[in-house]
Amino acid sequence: MTNDIKIAVVGLGQIGIYLLNELNIKKKDIELKTGKKIKVVAVSARNISKKRRFKINKKIFFKNPLDIFKETKIDILFEAIGLSDGISKKVVETALKNKIHVITPNKALISKHGDLLAKLAENNNVNLEFEASVAGGIPILRTIKEGLSTNKISKVYGILNGTSNYILSEMRNSKDSFSNVLKKAQKLGYAEPGNPKLDLNGFDAFAKVRILSSLAFNTLISKHKCLMEGIEKIELKDIEIANQLNLRIKLLGISEIINGSLFETVHPCLVSKNSYIGNVSGVMNAVILEGKPVGESILQGEGAGPGPTSSSLLSDLLSILKGNVKKPFGIPHIKRKSIKCYNVNNYTNSLYLRFEVKDKPGVLSKITNRLAKYKISVKRLIQTPDKKNNKATIVIITHKTNELNSKNCLSIFKKDKDILNYPTLIRMYN
Amino acid sequence: MTNDIKIAVVGLGQIGIYLLNELNIKKKDIELKTGKKIKVVAVSARNISKKRRFKINKKIFFKNPLDIFKETKIDILFEAIGLSDGISKKVVETALKNKIHVITPNKALISKHGDLLAKLAENNNVNLEFEASVAGGIPILRTIKEGLSTNKISKVYGILNGTSNYILSEMRNSKDSFSNVLKKAQKLGYAEPGNPKLDLNGFDAFAKVRILSSLAFNTLISKHKCLMEGIEKIELKDIEIANQLNLRIKLLGISEIINGSLFETVHPCLVSKNSYIGNVSGVMNAVILEGKPVGESILQGEGAGPGPTSSSLLSDLLSILKGNVKKPFGIPHIKRKSIKCYNVNNYTNSLYLRFEVKDKPGVLSKITNRLAKYKISVKRLIQTPDKKNNKATIVIITHKTNELNSKNCLSIFKKDKDILNYPTLIRMYN
Ligand SMILES: NC(=O)c1ccc[n+]([C@@H]2O[C@H](COP(=O)([O-])OP(=O)(O)OC[C@H]3O[C@@H](n4cnc5c(N)ncnc54)[C@H](OP(=O)(O)O)[C@@H]3O)[C@@H](O)[C@H]2O)c1
Ligand SMILES: NC(=O)c1ccc[n+]([C@@H]2O[C@H](COP(=O)([O-])OP(=O)(O)OC[C@H]3O[C@@H](n4cnc5c(N)ncnc54)[C@H](OP(=O)(O)O)[C@@H]3O)[C@@H](O)[C@H]2O)c1
Repeated sequence: MTNDIKIAVVGLGQIGIYLLNELNIKKKDIELKTGKKIKVVAVSARNISKKRRFKINKKIFFKNPLDIFKETKIDILFEAIGLSDGISKKVVETALKNKIHVITPNKALISKHGDLLAKLAENNNVNLEFEASVAGGIPILRTIKEGLSTNKISKVYGILNGTSNYILSEMRNSKDSFSNVLKKAQKLGYAEPGNPKLDLNGFDAFAKVRILSSLAFNTLISKHKCLMEGIEKIELKDIEIANQLNLRIKLLGISEIINGSLFETVHPCLVSKNSYIGNVSGVMNAVILEGKPVGESILQGEGAGPGPTSSSLLSDLLSILKGNVKKPFGIPHIKRKSIKCYNVNNYTNSLYLRFEVKDKPGVLSKITNRLAKYKISVKRLIQTPDKKNNKATIVIITHKTNELNSKNCLSIFKKDKDILNYPTLIRMYN
Repeated sequence: MTNDIKIAVVGLGQIGIYLLNELNIKKKDIELKTGKKIKVVAVSARNISKKRRFKINKKIFFKNPLDIFKETKIDILFEAIGLSDGISKKVVETALKNKIHVITPNKALISKHGDLLAKLAENNNVNLEFEASVAGGIPILRTIKEGLSTNKISKVYGILNGTSNYILSEMRNSKDSFSNVLKKAQKLGYAEPGNPKLDLNGFDAFAKVRILSSLAFNTLISKHKCLMEGIEKIELKDIEIANQLNLRIKLLGISEIINGSLFETVHPCLVSKNSYIGNVSGVMNAVILEGKPVGESILQGEGAGPGPTSSSLLSDLLSILKGNVKKPFGIPHIKRKSIKCYNVNNYTNSLYLRFEVKDKPGVLSKITNRLAKYKISVKRLIQTPDKKNNKATIVIITHKTNELNSKNCLSIFKKDKDILNYPTLIRMYN
């Protein structure tokens, strides 16, 4: 690499624009730390005349990012469009094939095509860096690849979606409904105004879990979807009942090796009010690693927003400017193994079950008999009548049972007219 | 660097022995990750015939570590003797001069001679790595140098001494005295059996603060001792009163830039029972960074013991094996600036003051008058009589005042016969 580094930024939305500004401010600092002079020589977005918070030099604007490769020589490309396929994939592939280093915060792309792209990067002897794709400003990927590099990691889990964590925290604080708090999150820029679905249904967190697993366990990115649930079905009622039980509801992403198989999941969990994870609130993210010999390590920081994301993008830039070419997943592609998926039917937890029922004799015993038939024993039961509406809420905390058993047990309640909704199920974190 | 890497381990105590074992176990993994084959070709300690938990090959044992350089060719040296000067310094200097990379967990050495040694390393184009010198297994130095490399950091603080944190936590849990809990800590290997002083008087934490500051602020290591206090004067009584007030006592190390000056301190602090830092217990360490644009970042992990320490030593090894030569403090030595020291007299806090007094009329008003004279206003006052002994305990929580003012105010109580001890002062964390 020469000392004058030519940079392209593709995608000028929330992230791209903030990044351009940071690159401008930090130019001197970067030269001090790496000896390299950086210059942005190309930018791309759909609309050249859109008003943006950073003054774009129109001479270096490309409507089609693929034209950059034909017209300009660049050393490093930032991809900040954000698609899992299409133009995002095309741009990154073309860059790597042209021996251009790539930096991206795009978890959708990496969790889907990371293996292929990593191989391409290695074959062309350039870097593919994606620190910003997981947990915003927390340098968790670098910590796994470098800071804890020789540890044997057995489990990684945490709060990986800032939007969901904000909504759950804010429902508890304001005692407001899911849909109202979602609107507030959208207004504050914590949730996408158009389509917040990928944050709320667990997809975004799951993509991050996949990237974390492959780094922590040196495996290829898995394709299986062990168990993915978001926060959409959590009602204020559940949050308030959890509170009475000294619990909090958190959306956790979990990845662990169980008997040689990989178990990856995202689902809401009940955790103790006094636990560390129970106290990570708002848009914060937290990642907990269990490794040998290091023991338990925790990293916490702001999980989203252009500031934290740019912090990680720039750390990737410095890593490229300072060092040798690095393997995208820490070890050579060819040494990464595929791993079989843990059978989700065996996943075992205590459960929180909330039944909304008709308030009439025999309903409770119908539920408890059914649980007994499936050997699911009851640890705690709270029945709250709603006389006015002739209804009752029954909350049951069970002892441990596995997914298959609980699914079979509960299935019957779908057709039962005394049970007003299919019961709400939230797993307790072990 | 060739592909066969020759390693020396100097110092075969707790750390050195654990490290030898880890190097042995992780040999293959290291080759996978770096393409390099490592081999330990020299070890050194004082006593060749001492029983150790790792079988030493006597053919490569050196009684005098300086002989290693004369007799064997090595690429990387681990220094794990632990002195701030003397043979530790001599070995590291000689290694660097001979173009040998050095890795050390020795905070005493780095916080005292880090500048000189870093310069030597740079001049000889080799690495000097010391991740294990601060916060055990938490990769905090790498996080500052790389993961958050372009952030403007304004403050770093945290729990940096596992021994002190264990003692404070255990006094609270067991309601036992400082000296009993210290004995227990020594038995468990959490405090040095011979001389635990450097852990307890704040010195160890202060050395770590110095290393953190120089990395966070790109400054030379400071020589000033702004304010250093350990936990030796904390009594069970203070811990119990703190508990009643919903507070906890923690030994914090703090480094921050105030009006362009560097403020470094280690002292016990009262923090809220519900705060994050108030819940970091036992031998855990935690470091909190405030940076722009990343926001607040937290790293927590086991702060001492050979496991976490070896995790960091090996991450340094991998960093050397993988990459280019790196600057020990992230930027070239010549660019690191010296910085003036913040005047500790201006350090301002709310204070917890505990007076043990004779239980007789006029004593309380003597205290409150004195405080009033120095414009130190009282936020809370709790007087607890001890009729049997004709004594009383007066605890006062003050509003904010600075160090100079409180020192002047309290000085008078040294000579007062009604005040049985010079008052215990614990600062509240802002
Ligand atoms: N926002 C966050 O807090 C955050 C945090 C972590 C990671 N990320 C990741 O960062 C990436 C970018 O997110 P964002 O929030 O910045 O998205 P965004 O605000 O929606 O911006 C997307 C940008 O891509 C441009 N674009 C779309 N199609 C294009 C095409 N065919 N050719 C060229 N440009 C095209 C758009 O152009 P126009 O402006 O002309 O429409 C827009 O500038 C995503 O991968 C996201 O997952 C975001
Ligand atoms: N222990 C921890 O949990 C921990 C955590 C973080 C950092 N550290 C750091 O790690 C370093 C080592 O700590 P440690 O706990 O391993 O100390 P240690 O158990 O006291 O071991 C010191 C070793 O140095 C050897 N030694 C002393 N003088 C020597 C000399 N002149 N020549 C050759 N060898 C000599 C001793 O030899 P003999 O065995 O023959 O007496 C012993 O093997 C220190 O810098 C410490 O601050 C320790």
